[in-house]
Amino acid sequence: MNGLSGGLFGGLFGRGAVAGEVGDRAWLRAMLDAEAALARAQARAGLIAPAAADAIARACRPEDYDIEGIGRAAGAAANPVVPLVRALRDNVAASAAMDSTDVTDAVDATDADAGTGGAGDAAGAVHRGATSQDILDTAAMLVAWRALDPLGADLAGVADACARLARAHRDTLMVGRTLMQQAVPTTFGLTAAGWLTAVDAARARLAYVRGNRLAAQLGGAAGTLSALGTDGVTVLGLFAEETGLAEPVLPWHTDRTRIADLAGALGGAAGPLGKIATDLILLAQTEVAEVVTAGERGGSSAMPHKRNPVAAISAAACARRVPGLVATLLAAMPQEHERAAGGWQAEWEPLSELLRLTGSAAAWIREALEGLRIDAGKMRRNLELTGGLLMAERIVGAMGGDPAVRTAVTKACARAVDEGRPLRDLLLADDAIPLTEARLDDLLDPGGYVGSAPALVDRALAAHDREGP
Amino acid sequence: MNGLSGGLFGGLFGRGAVAGEVGDRAWLRAMLDAEAALARAQARAGLIAPAAADAIARACRPEDYDIEGIGRAAGAAANPVVPLVRALRDNVAASAAMDSTDVTDAVDATDADAGTGGAGDAAGAVHRGATSQDILDTAAMLVAWRALDPLGADLAGVADACARLARAHRDTLMVGRTLMQQAVPTTFGLTAAGWLTAVDAARARLAYVRGNRLAAQLGGAAGTLSALGTDGVTVLGLFAEETGLAEPVLPWHTDRTRIADLAGALGGAAGPLGKIATDLILLAQTEVAEVVTAGERGGSSAMPHKRNPVAAISAAACARRVPGLVATLLAAMPQEHERAAGGWQAEWEPLSELLRLTGSAAAWIREALEGLRIDAGKMRRNLELTGGLLMAERIVGAMGGDPAVRTAVTKACARAVDEGRPLRDLLLADDAIPLTEARLDDLLDPGGYVGSAPALVDRALAAHDREGP
Amino acid sequence: MNGLSGGLFGGLFGRGAVAGEVGDRAWLRAMLDAEAALARAQARAGLIAPAAADAIARACRPEDYDIEGIGRAAGAAANPVVPLVRALRDNVAASAAMDSTDVTDAVDATDADAGTGGAGDAAGAVHRGATSQDILDTAAMLVAWRALDPLGADLAGVADACARLARAHRDTLMVGRTLMQQAVPTTFGLTAAGWLTAVDAARARLAYVRGNRLAAQLGGAAGTLSALGTDGVTVLGLFAEETGLAEPVLPWHTDRTRIADLAGALGGAAGPLGKIATDLILLAQTEVAEVVTAGERGGSSAMPHKRNPVAAISAAACARRVPGLVATLLAAMPQEHERAAGGWQAEWEPLSELLRLTGSAAAWIREALEGLRIDAGKMRRNLELTGGLLMAERIVGAMGGDPAVRTAVTKACARAVDEGRPLRDLLLADDAIPLTEARLDDLLDPGGYVGSAPALVDRALAAHDREGP
Amino acid sequence: MNGLSGGLFGGLFGRGAVAGEVGDRAWLRAMLDAEAALARAQARAGLIAPAAADAIARACRPEDYDIEGIGRAAGAAANPVVPLVRALRDNVAASAAMDSTDVTDAVDATDADAGTGGAGDAAGAVHRGATSQDILDTAAMLVAWRALDPLGADLAGVADACARLARAHRDTLMVGRTLMQQAVPTTFGLTAAGWLTAVDAARARLAYVRGNRLAAQLGGAAGTLSALGTDGVTVLGLFAEETGLAEPVLPWHTDRTRIADLAGALGGAAGPLGKIATDLILLAQTEVAEVVTAGERGGSSAMPHKRNPVAAISAAACARRVPGLVATLLAAMPQEHERAAGGWQAEWEPLSELLRLTGSAAAWIREALEGLRIDAGKMRRNLELTGGLLMAERIVGAMGGDPAVRTAVTKACARAVDEGRPLRDLLLADDAIPLTEARLDDLLDPGGYVGSAPALVDRALAAHDREGP
Repeated sequence: MNGLSGGLFGGLFGRGAVAGEVGDRAWLRAMLDAEAALARAQARAGLIAPAAADAIARACRPEDYDIEGIGRAAGAAANPVVPLVRALRDNVAASAAMDSTDVTDAVDATDADAGTGGAGDAAGAVHRGATSQDILDTAAMLVAWRALDPLGADLAGVADACARLARAHRDTLMVGRTLMQQAVPTTFGLTAAGWLTAVDAARARLAYVRGNRLAAQLGGAAGTLSALGTDGVTVLGLFAEETGLAEPVLPWHTDRTRIADLAGALGGAAGPLGKIATDLILLAQTEVAEVVTAGERGGSSAMPHKRNPVAAISAAACARRVPGLVATLLAAMPQEHERAAGGWQAEWEPLSELLRLTGSAAAWIREALEGLRIDAGKMRRNLELTGGLLMAERIVGAMGGDPAVRTAVTKACARAVDEGRPLRDLLLADDAIPLTEARLDDLLDPGGYVGSAPALVDRALAAHDREGP
Repeated sequence: MNGLSGGLFGGLFGRGAVAGEVGDRAWLRAMLDAEAALARAQARAGLIAPAAADAIARACRPEDYDIEGIGRAAGAAANPVVPLVRALRDNVAASAAMDSTDVTDAVDATDADAGTGGAGDAAGAVHRGATSQDILDTAAMLVAWRALDPLGADLAGVADACARLARAHRDTLMVGRTLMQQAVPTTFGLTAAGWLTAVDAARARLAYVRGNRLAAQLGGAAGTLSALGTDGVTVLGLFAEETGLAEPVLPWHTDRTRIADLAGALGGAAGPLGKIATDLILLAQTEVAEVVTAGERGGSSAMPHKRNPVAAISAAACARRVPGLVATLLAAMPQEHERAAGGWQAEWEPLSELLRLTGSAAAWIREALEGLRIDAGKMRRNLELTGGLLMAERIVGAMGGDPAVRTAVTKACARAVDEGRPLRDLLLADDAIPLTEARLDDLLDPGGYVGSAPALVDRALAAHDREGP
Repeated sequence: MNGLSGGLFGGLFGRGAVAGEVGDRAWLRAMLDAEAALARAQARAGLIAPAAADAIARACRPEDYDIEGIGRAAGAAANPVVPLVRALRDNVAASAAMDSTDVTDAVDATDADAGTGGAGDAAGAVHRGATSQDILDTAAMLVAWRALDPLGADLAGVADACARLARAHRDTLMVGRTLMQQAVPTTFGLTAAGWLTAVDAARARLAYVRGNRLAAQLGGAAGTLSALGTDGVTVLGLFAEETGLAEPVLPWHTDRTRIADLAGALGGAAGPLGKIATDLILLAQTEVAEVVTAGERGGSSAMPHKRNPVAAISAAACARRVPGLVATLLAAMPQEHERAAGGWQAEWEPLSELLRLTGSAAAWIREALEGLRIDAGKMRRNLELTGGLLMAERIVGAMGGDPAVRTAVTKACARAVDEGRPLRDLLLADDAIPLTEARLDDLLDPGGYVGSAPALVDRALAAHDREGP
Repeated sequence: MNGLSGGLFGGLFGRGAVAGEVGDRAWLRAMLDAEAALARAQARAGLIAPAAADAIARACRPEDYDIEGIGRAAGAAANPVVPLVRALRDNVAASAAMDSTDVTDAVDATDADAGTGGAGDAAGAVHRGATSQDILDTAAMLVAWRALDPLGADLAGVADACARLARAHRDTLMVGRTLMQQAVPTTFGLTAAGWLTAVDAARARLAYVRGNRLAAQLGGAAGTLSALGTDGVTVLGLFAEETGLAEPVLPWHTDRTRIADLAGALGGAAGPLGKIATDLILLAQTEVAEVVTAGERGGSSAMPHKRNPVAAISAAACARRVPGLVATLLAAMPQEHERAAGGWQAEWEPLSELLRLTGSAAAWIREALEGLRIDAGKMRRNLELTGGLLMAERIVGAMGGDPAVRTAVTKACARAVDEGRPLRDLLLADDAIPLTEARLDDLLDPGGYVGSAPALVDRALAAHDREGP
């Protein structure tokens, strides 16, 4: 168990199922999958015997490898593939030794051109024509591919929860707040719809990257596939097929745009999650109290009364760590020559972290939204807190934007605040504001001033539905 | 002229035409374009008189506004739109005063529902229903839209130069270098093809963002379009049309995924430019000397002999500054409630910088590549520098990956380095390596060991051609 | 005027006097100061004639140089010093031509060892023995030195305002909020004292860097001072003296720890400013309303009632942009060999930006705090908002931390929230909590539960006073 | 074992002894140390019985706690201290139950004012008066304190290796390279001296932070120490004493300047390590080949001849990841109110990572330098590679900087490059350059043009020696 999927801080930063897909075991599995796919591809291309490919594939069981030992040995070569390949060869050879009588019959030992001729030579067929980076990059793509599955599910859960909230509270009045001040009325439905469209945009981006930009890597020592003779391009295509990843036009050892696309999409997903977290934390403030995240009681041992919005706080903490990691990956892009000395190696852990943290944020926000309780009464009371001040814009607008009216209303607002008097009284008493009492009361009703909020909610829900499940 | 498009450091960081599209004047123009578009949209919706819209549009000439004055006044409201709208209203009113006899005839002054009735009221129709962020966000999108035009052109120039180099040097042998050591042969064509596919990937991403994610912004005070009554959604659509930007499903005041997408795409474009810069700088090293950027003579006043790769160095400097700016924009995404207190404002200058720096890097790299001189002879001589050591992988591979051969070759390589003896002699003398002299010479020929390099160049060129002009 | 000290967004991001010290004009002046200091140092070392040094110094007037022209020409050499030196030489030569009859008398034209013998040769003495980076790095240090003056003054103003608030409100009760929930009582004095100690820590760090780490740069082409013969080290010392900066042990062309120290100190200063901004924005929320920043009325054209905390918002926006710039400077540290190709150049604008933004944040926060109005009544009312829930910790503690009591109090708190009943009633009715009514009322008084808050305020003020003016 | 001190990538990123000090076990130990120190401090203050403190301290053995279980439970409270305190209370209670007959005798059960009266109540005395953040922040400081020990040792080892190299190669000629081009001669001693001064600057900074800025944290729920009654300040001082950390003026729950100082110092240390790594990688290039890191043979399984500079590459990879983490910590500084909702939590893992990566970079560079082999012959040959071009600056300078000479030399340099002719011949043939053959040969000797390099080496060594061991 490595730190990414558990440990002391894993409860906060490894929430949900993504963490399990980006830990050491997941990487090990992905590297072995890449080796197995390489062997199968070469067998299909006729470069190694099918029995050799089978023997290799059988030896690619993660549980047979010692992560800590490989990790320690990785220092000598600056990557873990070198010791892993050594161990894989040993396992294949050991297995071949045991099975030799059975297997050799199936081998066409005379076909020198097919490279290693049989399972007896299977150990020699391991990692054939590949460089460490081929295996590690392909593994990175597989890790990302697999991690994007639970991440996508949690983001879908977030979006669906937003959609439910938007639909249920399409007309629930609340205060719209700008620059952290009460501004004009809105609806909670529109707030949730805003979350929804942002999350759906992030989901679309991630889905595109997953479907189009996660590609297999195979180039050999310097990207020419030279060790595969004239079969390089063929094997590249077969290898991609075997991994289930896209086939790249070229080996991309120092073209890191795929990593950048992935990083950018994850950064773009963590942003809306951080935004929802921020809003929930703000709306849950004791003085605001418009939402409660269910089950968030007793978070503090010292203060039994507290109901900390733990899920939102944890998501906010996860999201805050994302931009620095994206920057690290972008800064690593200018990689030298055919394979890089430092920039490439610097990607591995940050990429895992980026997936883990975005995944954790998604899991937390999903929990928070699925258990969210809305206090519509408190929303309404907060709307009335300023005694009509929020309607000032509307009153000015209703008078055609007349500058004299604007000035008068502004003054009245200031007096209302300074003197603690109701705005209504001050406006009625002001000759510069020619409004009847009935008209004024009408204008002061927040429910009549949500503009297109319900229509916008409908647009957001329709767009969400179009995206499909 | 502001610092972004000139100044002391503009020669390095504002190269090319993008800088001119992201300076203060460009922002001012874009804000005024947004105000004009808003007026026209409302006229089309029947909310203000066409003559008022015309009067407003006529007043939206950047040269009539004092950037420094607006900038100073921006401090009072935490954004420059407030003083700009004030100045625009004044200009519209002043113009209306002059034109009053001519214009009032055209006004349907009785149509109260149409809001401000005519050019006489045009000043009152300025910025109607909008909030500062509507104008500034729309302006940001227009600035980006316009800046992406020269950026796209320079990136296309970079890609075309890469394609020309790849085609011309499809078979030009050079050393492939990995972990900053000579590894095995490759071709310069494949190096250039690798640059090409990375740049094309970045271009595709930028084109997608430009075509789909740059949207108009209109939400009013808190995103409900309330000041536009029941016409909010209609005006939103017309406004987007007038700006030429996409129509968003919702106002996106605190959904910053569009900014993140743009930032991610720019970050993803700066990466390959930085990579090309790095390679050029490395290849131009005195000891390597495989490329010369034309005209790079006398860069140093103190050292008359030096030929610094100025364009590549400048591009590298631009590219290094990009990741931090992307991180700043991503970190600003969790914006509070309906409009944010700090995060939003923090976007303006970094977004401009990001466009400017990516644009400058693209312009520099285009210059560097278009003037690049390749020294194929030096490439060949560098390939022979290690006396055949680069062919070690091939020799091992040709012997079927036999571990005993691998060990023998590895030892021979070590001796060749340590004792300064030719690898060829050591291999011929080694019984563990059963090769004839002729076969060995064949294996030691780098030209026979570029694997799929030419085929890969062809793939990259074909893919580039598919992308079209 | 460049964008750093004015322009459209300068009202927000160039507040205060720092911006004026980091613009193009300030850089130009600093570069010319470095050239003049170099000439004077060489005259003192006897390497050039005093008259030549005088002639050079006289030509170092910023107003005689064309920033835009130098900036454009900078592209050819990847730095602005090359064209500046050319222009300086021309100016010195032109001036010498005019003065030749007067000056030549003073020249010991026979002293060949003294280098250029007189004002007639003054042009040849310009920039003697230096490389562009010597001038630009020294200029960067001078720019920083000068910018840290107004920055230090504004930070001192911030600290003094915090100290005044801490003293004045040493015993003003307010709610302590943790994880964005009301927690237990504190005092506003302690809040302000917390700001104070953080700002004083940042000031101490900046003062140290200014006093010890801003050093002159002089190394010549590759850091050996070779063009100065055997006088290199002597001239280095004299040059540092002339600039007023520290003398480095070595030229530091690719030792960027000084830049990192400066960046770290600025990042460490922006943090507390951002923290104060955050607190002010939160305390100014309509629902909290414990502080008002004077004069912040009518920030919104659309919403006349709003009182946006403009200064705090602007400061927050400035502070948010700092971490990305610090990262950029740190990422540029690994500079190649004797002088770098990209990393060095990447420092110039981010360093200016870092100074400008930290300076702007300091100016904004100083304004905000100096005009801050505290609503002690609202603080008190917010303290009572939860009907005693905040005292739960105290009650548990008063009962010796008995787990049974803790459980009972926790349950009572939950019921108080869920059923909207006063905690006091629930506690009195609970047999598990053996408290008399008088003792309970005593425990429920927030004024009796501020612990060491006043003593801590006194400690902070004493520490602040020790730091001295 | 968590991922920080081992795992698949730990061989690269967890080199050396720092990783072992920042893993989960180290954090757990530090948190328990904080709890034990708190108990002892309260016993010394007379707030709990000495026997209770002893019982608590005895229960603070890391091996008795389940890291994974605590980590999982941490999610419910958004920090691991809550479940840890629960487990600690249970362990103390269980132990007390076993020991009850022995211990109660020692308890002054009548002293109600002393809080929990004895070991029988020791469980109730656990974590008394503290909040989770008190324990976690103190633990973070202890973790940093302990990690800075091996980090300091490795940095000292790096500095000493640099000093040895500087001394040994004080006069070893090599090419000085600027903008990645050969420029003028220098010595390898000066190169190493430059590394030395940078590393020593970073060490001094880290030592200052360790000695002055790592402070204990104790504030209770909202920083007032209210649960400790009137003894808060006393306990704070005693607690700091017990932890061995500095005593802060105030609790610093939302004053994160200490974290920023630590982060800045680590970022400032990773920079020079990255710089040394970069230089080593560049100097080890096949075409340059001036250094070899011992034992770096056979890093590549595919290419037996390669000698990848594994240690330098690994260090470079570590160093590249540092700036993003520093930015994350700086961006987390603006923490809300008395304790933060997200920013604080976001610090834990990045701080650990920062220590681990800087430590790993230091360990790698120490290894690289301690085993470094210098090829002085290759340095000399590289110096002669351009046939005297490097001496152009010197020749111009020797002629008094005469512009006509400069022009002639520049032209000769260009011809030498373009026509492949020796610069010497061209200069001798040029009438504009009045030099005798002997004088020219003298000027063309690189050994005579290292300026103050040896003197500068001596200065650097003297400064290093002054710093002391």
